[in-house]
Amino acid sequence: MVTALNKIAVLGGGSWGTALALAAARAGREVMIWARDAETINAINTSKTNPKYLPGIEWTEQISATSSLELAVSSADAILLVTPAQTTRVMMEEIKTFLPANTPVVLCAKGIEQSTGSLLSEVIKSVTNNATPAALSGPSFGHDVAKGLPTAVTIAAEDGAVADQLSFALASESFRPYATDDLTGVQIGGALKNVLAIACGAAIGYGLGASAQAALTARGFAELTRLGMAMNARSETLTGLSGLGDLVLCCSSTQSRNFAFGLKIGQGRTPEELLAPGQKLAEGAHSASIAVTLAAEHSVDMPIAEAVSQILTGKIDVAQALSGLMTRPLKRENHP
Amino acid sequence: MVTALNKIAVLGGGSWGTALALAAARAGREVMIWARDAETINAINTSKTNPKYLPGIEWTEQISATSSLELAVSSADAILLVTPAQTTRVMMEEIKTFLPANTPVVLCAKGIEQSTGSLLSEVIKSVTNNATPAALSGPSFGHDVAKGLPTAVTIAAEDGAVADQLSFALASESFRPYATDDLTGVQIGGALKNVLAIACGAAIGYGLGASAQAALTARGFAELTRLGMAMNARSETLTGLSGLGDLVLCCSSTQSRNFAFGLKIGQGRTPEELLAPGQKLAEGAHSASIAVTLAAEHSVDMPIAEAVSQILTGKIDVAQALSGLMTRPLKRENHP
Repeated sequence: MVTALNKIAVLGGGSWGTALALAAARAGREVMIWARDAETINAINTSKTNPKYLPGIEWTEQISATSSLELAVSSADAILLVTPAQTTRVMMEEIKTFLPANTPVVLCAKGIEQSTGSLLSEVIKSVTNNATPAALSGPSFGHDVAKGLPTAVTIAAEDGAVADQLSFALASESFRPYATDDLTGVQIGGALKNVLAIACGAAIGYGLGASAQAALTARGFAELTRLGMAMNARSETLTGLSGLGDLVLCCSSTQSRNFAFGLKIGQGRTPEELLAPGQKLAEGAHSASIAVTLAAEHSVDMPIAEAVSQILTGKIDVAQALSGLMTRPLKRENHP
Repeated sequence: MVTALNKIAVLGGGSWGTALALAAARAGREVMIWARDAETINAINTSKTNPKYLPGIEWTEQISATSSLELAVSSADAILLVTPAQTTRVMMEEIKTFLPANTPVVLCAKGIEQSTGSLLSEVIKSVTNNATPAALSGPSFGHDVAKGLPTAVTIAAEDGAVADQLSFALASESFRPYATDDLTGVQIGGALKNVLAIACGAAIGYGLGASAQAALTARGFAELTRLGMAMNARSETLTGLSGLGDLVLCCSSTQSRNFAFGLKIGQGRTPEELLAPGQKLAEGAHSASIAVTLAAEHSVDMPIAEAVSQILTGKIDVAQALSGLMTRPLKRENHP
């Protein structure tokens, strides 16, 4: 028998946070969103909409929103952390005093902390012992989930029983979580796919076509797998929803911020321009250099991640990068 | 030093055959296309176009076309067989008397022989000892290759040196073959991706959205991997260009005949209607039932291939199939 997790706090009132709050409500949970933006809080509470982040979508489910972190967190059975990856440490510092002991904190943003190179689950652990780190990841766009289109994701925690509990708490007919205890594998897949999506976007933006895009996706998956295996991820996690599934989605759709970012790079916009404050966040732009560092540490070959990192730091241009990736010397496929 | 394969016969004057002929010509080979259609032969020879199958594309490369199989085959150093998968046996029967000993015959269509359940390389071997079976497969559309957009494919032969020779013979700046000796793996990936592309097309046609499509692609890849491993394919082939790469492309683009076929099924068209003579060939409609048989023989679970097969034989409708696939019971991701 699975212990009931009933009260869910969703930290972050953007499109993904609101969508996950709706998924939890559809699963029968009592849901409270914490958001910074007063307009968003008001819209959620009074009109069951989030016009800023989910324009055109109205819901009937009961969810409430607050600007008080303490109110949202202190009575929660589980926390969904849906703020940007690089703010994980700050958020955990802010909530640690309100957090009931052993509360699952589910990482719903993907990335690796840029200042330390740490997985976000390690960031959580380094801030507080009260939280049980978990991660939710898989091929899913906020709009699709909010509209109730069928979506399958992976939920990971080091203790598989915690992952089972969380999956049970969030499962409904349109939202299917699959549990795993491979917390490392889920996070690595989630972080690297953002980097690879930038490369695929750049290829399309530059006009290389769908064949090159698919080749980059497959070769990118090989990179993700090599680094994942070196970091003790399990291969079934990497080929699963949070690895390959999410990679496929993000490498093929302009709905993905990272793909859209790459598309603009391929069309000739500069990284400086696109990374300026106020632009939409492309997490892969942060993770690229970290991926290259991790690849070096673990002695694995990651030419696509390296090319993305070099483009972003202005060392090579898109033409050079793509030509280098698509015209590597003839060799056997099984020798990376 | 790699032995020179200079004269290439391309059997099949459709879009893929013409594109591969152009790739070979760009690699510096002497190329002759065999085609049935007199207009196509005439257009290739006189105006360097193939208006029926590659409308809007003109080339400058020198390739010739003939209606004589004997002329094309008898002096060739290698044959690219680009006729439909289910005609492989008939084609081999027709060319076996003209075929010089030990000539590589490169399978460029994807499928499994429906009447026998055999891989096409086995079909070649059962017809003649003169041919050395090989296969070319990867994420690539005829139009992209014809236009010279960068494309990477896998070329397989049981003897890796033959695969190297063929790769060398066809390689140019825009067309990059990677050689492997895993002839089985390349063919299994190629055949199954057609079946899985039908499922992804059906999901989109039915309106399920990009998240469900990506989930089906990832779970489909798991099916492909399970069957491939049971049939002694190598995992690096299945995750490579001919497996995952081609799967990603075909599961996401209406340029793929199988995806387009699935799309229509999802929109409510009947299999009978779409499989009627004169309709565009969707090879996955043939391979679905064979995949199910192979899955049973090798005791692997392939729910997506099974659902496609059941839709095509009218046992369940699309709504039932998709709901069954997207709402399987909650379970751990690593237990298929």
